[in-house]
Amino acid sequence: MSERQLWERYKKYLCGVESVGLTLDVSRMSFADDFLERMRGPMDKAFDAMEALEKGAIANPDEKRMVGHYWLRAPERAPDKGLAKEVQDTVAAVRAFADEVHSARVKPQKADRFTRVLLVGIGGSALGPQLVADALGQPATDRMQVFFFDNTDPDGMDRVLAQLGGKLAETLTVVISKSGGTKETRNGMVEAERAYQQKGLDFGKHAVAVTGADSELDRTAKKGNWLRTFPMWDWVGGRTSVLSAVGLLPARLQGLDIDGMLAGAKDMDAATRERDPLRNPAALMALMWFHAGSGRGAKDMVILPYKDRLMLLSRYLQQLVMESLGKEKDLDGKVVNQGIAVYGNKGSTDQHAYVQQLREGVNNFFATFLEVLKDRDGESMQVEPDITSGDYLLGFYLGTRRALFEKGRESMTLTVPDVSARTLGALIALYERAVGYYASLVNINAYHQPGVEAGKKAAGVVLELQRKVLAKLRGDKAKGQTAEELAAAMGVADEVETVFKVLEHLASNPAHGVKREPGTTRFDTRFRAG
Amino acid sequence: MSERQLWERYKKYLCGVESVGLTLDVSRMSFADDFLERMRGPMDKAFDAMEALEKGAIANPDEKRMVGHYWLRAPERAPDKGLAKEVQDTVAAVRAFADEVHSARVKPQKADRFTRVLLVGIGGSALGPQLVADALGQPATDRMQVFFFDNTDPDGMDRVLAQLGGKLAETLTVVISKSGGTKETRNGMVEAERAYQQKGLDFGKHAVAVTGADSELDRTAKKGNWLRTFPMWDWVGGRTSVLSAVGLLPARLQGLDIDGMLAGAKDMDAATRERDPLRNPAALMALMWFHAGSGRGAKDMVILPYKDRLMLLSRYLQQLVMESLGKEKDLDGKVVNQGIAVYGNKGSTDQHAYVQQLREGVNNFFATFLEVLKDRDGESMQVEPDITSGDYLLGFYLGTRRALFEKGRESMTLTVPDVSARTLGALIALYERAVGYYASLVNINAYHQPGVEAGKKAAGVVLELQRKVLAKLRGDKAKGQTAEELAAAMGVADEVETVFKVLEHLASNPAHGVKREPGTTRFDTRFRAG
Repeated sequence: MSERQLWERYKKYLCGVESVGLTLDVSRMSFADDFLERMRGPMDKAFDAMEALEKGAIANPDEKRMVGHYWLRAPERAPDKGLAKEVQDTVAAVRAFADEVHSARVKPQKADRFTRVLLVGIGGSALGPQLVADALGQPATDRMQVFFFDNTDPDGMDRVLAQLGGKLAETLTVVISKSGGTKETRNGMVEAERAYQQKGLDFGKHAVAVTGADSELDRTAKKGNWLRTFPMWDWVGGRTSVLSAVGLLPARLQGLDIDGMLAGAKDMDAATRERDPLRNPAALMALMWFHAGSGRGAKDMVILPYKDRLMLLSRYLQQLVMESLGKEKDLDGKVVNQGIAVYGNKGSTDQHAYVQQLREGVNNFFATFLEVLKDRDGESMQVEPDITSGDYLLGFYLGTRRALFEKGRESMTLTVPDVSARTLGALIALYERAVGYYASLVNINAYHQPGVEAGKKAAGVVLELQRKVLAKLRGDKAKGQTAEELAAAMGVADEVETVFKVLEHLASNPAHGVKREPGTTRFDTRFRAG
Repeated sequence: MSERQLWERYKKYLCGVESVGLTLDVSRMSFADDFLERMRGPMDKAFDAMEALEKGAIANPDEKRMVGHYWLRAPERAPDKGLAKEVQDTVAAVRAFADEVHSARVKPQKADRFTRVLLVGIGGSALGPQLVADALGQPATDRMQVFFFDNTDPDGMDRVLAQLGGKLAETLTVVISKSGGTKETRNGMVEAERAYQQKGLDFGKHAVAVTGADSELDRTAKKGNWLRTFPMWDWVGGRTSVLSAVGLLPARLQGLDIDGMLAGAKDMDAATRERDPLRNPAALMALMWFHAGSGRGAKDMVILPYKDRLMLLSRYLQQLVMESLGKEKDLDGKVVNQGIAVYGNKGSTDQHAYVQQLREGVNNFFATFLEVLKDRDGESMQVEPDITSGDYLLGFYLGTRRALFEKGRESMTLTVPDVSARTLGALIALYERAVGYYASLVNINAYHQPGVEAGKKAAGVVLELQRKVLAKLRGDKAKGQTAEELAAAMGVADEVETVFKVLEHLASNPAHGVKREPGTTRFDTRFRAG
């Protein structure tokens, strides 16, 4: 295709949303001229399914719940008034609480004011807040600085506490868990509580919860007289919760424009209800995913925002897309093993990392470029006559797009005016809806995650086994035993590998007092209780 | 396979390097019993190729250079003494300079001492230093704090400058570019220079270069009387340069143990010269990559370190693996489109993001778990009776490994004792050599990157076009013109899409004074010089 023909294709398919200034360019996706027409039937079904979803259909049948993240930014569209009021009240409560914190009407036990937020959460309870904090934060002017416990790594938590730089007494901890029972988050909470206690501080006077009514966390917060609790609802999935209190509370505490985020998402929702894919970027994008991966995830989605602030977008979308679309069975119970793998960091940085493979290597991906028109606040210097650093960023994006296309590698481009609260809200809403449409196109449920339970259950078995190992070692105090001897003596000979792994870990850490006696091979190592 | 059989398989194939305490477990890779035997011929060829490489063969024929990153940690193995001396002298110079900075014998123009490092670099000149700084840094005790300009994003640079918190006068800027001509890095340097000037500071008195002899950057440093210049050699590729001055200088300035890193890498190099794959984790890992992706990159490599500090490892390996292996042609000139896509962040966090897809969705990957035995400095609290946060981390890793294996998803596990300088050096060396072996197995050159030039060239064309557009707009000052009119008038009608993209960007930023006059559609927008 000649440059001239590409320009015509660009003009023909460019899909814009005026209200947020976003465009989607699919001219470098090599779909056939009749592709959109051929997909009209399935796409109409997807529109119908989305319409039912937005009206409150039970879209998550195995969990028997509605899927209502769209109501978070348009409570008037919620299926009943009580629910709408809860949404509105929560936004108001977030705003009021943040104001009280900023003005020190709510203040810590032994300091004048809260200056830091420590968010304890994982998955959907951390990725959204991390994206928002990084994309919109302004180091010099943010009201509060936000830190994260997003794992059960002890050293990771120690490091974050060290980064707080002795300001724990000025730190407000926000514990987020919808179910209230997520173990990583529970561990983070308990470790945080101990850190406060070690400074002679009452945890409850520095803690806030975001959780479902009457969850384990909700009860912990009540019992500990925490400062406040904000609701999470069963009709909001973790990966689409960033515009609930989960994301709004930390954002507002940081001093960010939550109204802008909500408005941007609402405007994008309105635009992406449109039934003509050429005027609906969520539908058009979903169709491009279908085209690129032949409707079975045959190609990875590489996300390349040419903007440092959007670096976490790919991690955020990794969850949104892969957890929503990576499913074993379709809606008819047929095994389909669906999904789309997502990765990427930022341009032009990634050009110096793996664009070599994208251009020349295995053609197992399609790229999504994200172009931001505004370079910076204030004016730019020229790094060469008539050229700024931002002009280079544009040049590298266009250059890479061309270099990939020359080699038959497909790409599309989202262009946004800036990285503002409005734009970020719009991008989040755009991808949420594209995921929903694509799920309909491939006939899967985008709103559950049946596959994550197995790993959690298996983890529970490991911990149970560890308790038994410790009890046995303590009972046989004098003598060192190999993993095989111990497993046999415990009547779990089949679980010897897990016993061995547990023993190696126990002996590498002082907490449980397990000692190693080296043998001739590593499998002859004897273990005993200190 | 029963749990018992898996234990036997685990014992049979567990591959350890005693000197660094690392093991590689491939028991959950489903290779056939005769696989290693069948691969003996190709693997022997790979060992031969590596031996020649380490002796100084021209392993990068199209760039006519040797590949010698192994000599960085064993200069005595370099093919000539002059080269060995250069390596040793550079490590000594790095150490001496860092000592002078720490003791304020080298000090900034208007402050008592340097307390911050601003590293300006991209790709191989940033990813290694970022990994090292994040993996080994200790917020409370580091000698200096390290910041990065790793892109040509104007807002990104503004944000880093804001994060420096008014301490620019105490900031040592380290500009790293092997060729000395990388535009992103040049732009970062020029923007940094301006920031110093705006504070009335002489850039040269705060700047250090790491670059090739007589490069553009080398000349800039000389002309500007920079504090010091450290060498880069043409026989060290960017993606394997972290143990040259590129990584050692910022690490030592931060106060990290560079001798430990070098020793760990040297020990791993020694262990991975072994010709029995069952005693050589680099060879065994390369064979597993070959097995998993059928020698053509059919499966993505998902990197899951269960440790916050190793979160950047996947980004680092993304470059090392994809830029090395993502090649159009093999050594015989045949089009093969090789490569392996790499992504991942950290466990157990990612279990709450995309493990749903890994377990149930499209089976287009193999996982590499990274287990760290040591949980933290100091003792752990119990979050439940007999269970610590770190025990949970182990439980989640083992649980996920099992959940994936149950569904026929392959994984391997690297286990290391801790995240120390030694261990990190060993991990880097392990992957460098595995990449080299794998490249031999699939008959490609791992040491060039012919595909990255095209994008850079195309970017140059865009910037040249921008200059012409600006000249034309200024010449026709009075009248607004559409992109099509302008492209036609400039005699570049075919480039109208690029002209349009450039105009949209110019008009969104004040630097060049280009104004927009809206038309009926976005393509009728008229542009004129302010």
